[in-house]
Amino acid sequence: MDNECVFCKIVDGAIPSYKVYEDDRVLAFLDISPINVGHTLVIPKQHTRFMHQLDEEFFLHAMSVSKKIMLAIEITINPARVGMIIEQFDVAHAHLKITPLNDIADIQTVHAPIPSKEELENTAKLIESAL
Amino acid sequence: MDNECVFCKIVDGAIPSYKVYEDDRVLAFLDISPINVGHTLVIPKQHTRFMHQLDEEFFLHAMSVSKKIMLAIEITINPARVGMIIEQFDVAHAHLKITPLNDIADIQTVHAPIPSKEELENTAKLIESAL
Repeated sequence: MDNECVFCKIVDGAIPSYKVYEDDRVLAFLDISPINVGHTLVIPKQHTRFMHQLDEEFFLHAMSVSKKIMLAIEITINPARVGMIIEQFDVAHAHLKITPLNDIADIQTVHAPIPSKEELENTAKLIESAL
Repeated sequence: MDNECVFCKIVDGAIPSYKVYEDDRVLAFLDISPINVGHTLVIPKQHTRFMHQLDEEFFLHAMSVSKKIMLAIEITINPARVGMIIEQFDVAHAHLKITPLNDIADIQTVHAPIPSKEELENTAKLIESAL
């Protein structure tokens, strides 16, 4: 536990939350400032910086829980789309966001200039080389 | 295969792509209009509408591949964050986006009005009831 971390305080119960799901490793609770109502955060209980730094089995457990929440949001809220976002700029504790989306405008992404064919070829090779 | 689907045509090879990873079930290739260079799409080869509709084992395989690509992007491109987005408004074939993020402004989300305590309590119970 990181004593300065708001998500650790939520796991600890020092800060209350609207829980959707909990087990020994993972907690899911509503974002109180949602993209749309139903926007849920899934976090590892242990303080970790980024989701992809979790070990394989833990990461896939969190994703299995997340898939169940996506299906539950589809059934209960029935939005146009059920979205998932990992960005982790806001709180420095690994988390992913599952959120009802009503319109593509709910998530606006800013795109770089279109890369050249050569840049795309080199980038694909670069990433592939590290797999 | 859906003959009208651009991602099925990429799987089929009828449309070329900058491949990052491929196995018998999953294909990963660069987005030619990236949020930032390295932006990779991960798709099931079989035509499916939404990621969360894949069966559990297939979904977790796609997520295992995605985690490896996130780590590869971290190692090779070293952006401020490695993000993941599932929205599926654009192409009607299940996909997720893994992308280097340099700044929170790369993904701008539009938020609903802050819900009341009662609305949050009811929403948490509603989603939990469907898990």
